[in-house]
Amino acid sequence: MTGGPRTEPIDARAVLGRCRDAVAPALRAAVARLDPASREQATYHLGWTELDGRPGAGGGKAVRPALALISAAAAGAPIAAGLPGAVAVELVHNFSLLHDDLMDGDTERRHRRTVWAQWGAAAAILTGDALLALAHEVLLEAGSPDAAEAARLLAATVRELIRGQAEDVAFEQRDDVTVSECLAMAAGKTGSLLATSAAVGSILAGGPAGLTAALHGYGAELGMAFQLVDDLLGIWGDPAVTGKPVLSDLRSRKMSLPVTYAVHHGGAAGRELARWLAAPGPAGEVTDEPQLRRIAALVEDGGGRDWAAAEARRRMALAEKALAGAELPDRPRAELVALGRYLVDREF
Amino acid sequence: MTGGPRTEPIDARAVLGRCRDAVAPALRAAVARLDPASREQATYHLGWTELDGRPGAGGGKAVRPALALISAAAAGAPIAAGLPGAVAVELVHNFSLLHDDLMDGDTERRHRRTVWAQWGAAAAILTGDALLALAHEVLLEAGSPDAAEAARLLAATVRELIRGQAEDVAFEQRDDVTVSECLAMAAGKTGSLLATSAAVGSILAGGPAGLTAALHGYGAELGMAFQLVDDLLGIWGDPAVTGKPVLSDLRSRKMSLPVTYAVHHGGAAGRELARWLAAPGPAGEVTDEPQLRRIAALVEDGGGRDWAAAEARRRMALAEKALAGAELPDRPRAELVALGRYLVDREF
Repeated sequence: MTGGPRTEPIDARAVLGRCRDAVAPALRAAVARLDPASREQATYHLGWTELDGRPGAGGGKAVRPALALISAAAAGAPIAAGLPGAVAVELVHNFSLLHDDLMDGDTERRHRRTVWAQWGAAAAILTGDALLALAHEVLLEAGSPDAAEAARLLAATVRELIRGQAEDVAFEQRDDVTVSECLAMAAGKTGSLLATSAAVGSILAGGPAGLTAALHGYGAELGMAFQLVDDLLGIWGDPAVTGKPVLSDLRSRKMSLPVTYAVHHGGAAGRELARWLAAPGPAGEVTDEPQLRRIAALVEDGGGRDWAAAEARRRMALAEKALAGAELPDRPRAELVALGRYLVDREF
Repeated sequence: MTGGPRTEPIDARAVLGRCRDAVAPALRAAVARLDPASREQATYHLGWTELDGRPGAGGGKAVRPALALISAAAAGAPIAAGLPGAVAVELVHNFSLLHDDLMDGDTERRHRRTVWAQWGAAAAILTGDALLALAHEVLLEAGSPDAAEAARLLAATVRELIRGQAEDVAFEQRDDVTVSECLAMAAGKTGSLLATSAAVGSILAGGPAGLTAALHGYGAELGMAFQLVDDLLGIWGDPAVTGKPVLSDLRSRKMSLPVTYAVHHGGAAGRELARWLAAPGPAGEVTDEPQLRRIAALVEDGGGRDWAAAEARRRMALAEKALAGAELPDRPRAELVALGRYLVDREF
């Protein structure tokens, strides 16, 4: 089947909701196995409780577990076959959030205090470590003869995540980061775990290697598109939707993808942008909003906004092309396409 | 065979040296796979290079890889069968050192600057994370049909390590920690990884479950003995041997096992010790050496030194008893006994 997916009335948000409901009991059972301190902090971090003990408002979109469950369906198995993979990738994602929030010094995530800000650095380190170990345990207990292969891929993915995060940290000290370096960093930080999420269900379900590779390719390109959109939202996103301050990525002078593109390919606007990024301003965040708006205009005039939007669309097309070349049932194919488009078509 | 191990002229230091040499190439090959930043920091941390790029003086005793290699021999396999396990436990041990040094604020280890002190907190977090992921990768690539079982045990062990470390951190805020809580913490922080080290070679070699369980039991009790001796050395050890300041664990008012015992069972001396521990002294380390010597005398008068020494001997006897009940060849049996006695008979 190469003619693209059948157009079906698939509601991506409903798919995400169903998958979140399907993974929730297994995820809660996994977290319940943690030592008391890690359990308390993970339960809060995941949005299940508030600091005063009340039930929480819930966590993120749970994109990664959704991909893992649909991945099992893509291999012709019940989504339950992908469940240990879905739990594992969500645990790994949250391990990386706990450590990243600490390393980045972020005191808030989704309008809530971060674990390190509330309980201290040691808590965030240990709870993150515990979630990573738990992810491996859950996956290796899956009972699938291919669990070891899934766990090997997960471990390799964690090293890719770390490479991306290490580069992200290193780039903050540099003013000569190229677009291709920035793309490679995003492939590590975001692409690798989405790729593994989209492949792990098929691996656990014993799907053919060609299908698993196609799903992995779909997830990798979706991840790049997702990061490009995230970077666009970090500058032009609506704070009410993103949960971050307006123009947030400019406040921290972050070398995001649109900024990096404009610096290198934006002519006069790019050179002015580069001077602003390199200028030794006062320490801490830039809070002068009129100045930030002028900087955002430089990124736009330098072509950063258009390039990132076009590149996100191109990556999403590559993701769909990876699927189009593979044999999988219509329903999971349509769900993967709908999910991808929903994630990439967020307002920017 | 229940009559105890044959007495053979086994030189434990030579066994450790041979095992360290046997694991070194595989360990170096594993570390070479890390991203450049993690690789540089891990290479320094492991003692292979100095900060100026010169070759390093080498790392620790490599007790855990030695146990893993002998464990394979205990199952009748060549020690090479235990190699992926040996690399994995050494990587996990060093993951925990990198994160613990940061959490404990230790700026030196074996007279060298710690990774976080040299490169910052983010470096220590990421390099530790990378070593943990790499441990799983190496183990799951082992090619043994039992690699998944070994990796599952390793992941469970990491969670035990974290439980122990989380308790250690929490105990610093409490003055009512009991001896049994302190022993349970040591079982997590030290016993669990030594137990897994002693079992992993047998698992990878397909050893019988009874033998693997006996080796695990040996390692768990050896780990407790090892921690008790470490705590004794933390107070009465020779700084030239331990690489730590004289009376180091008292400087930080650490609730180590001998101290905890004396507080609860030491009569008048224990009560005086408890008052000193609870007194809101000046922040930071105690550096008044005559005062520290008086405190050490209170721990001794309160029975903490004798109890810890006797408990270490009792645990070592339990470790040997676990081996005595198992069927394994004479040579690895004798090596395990010699290794245990060498580790526990350090001067204290």
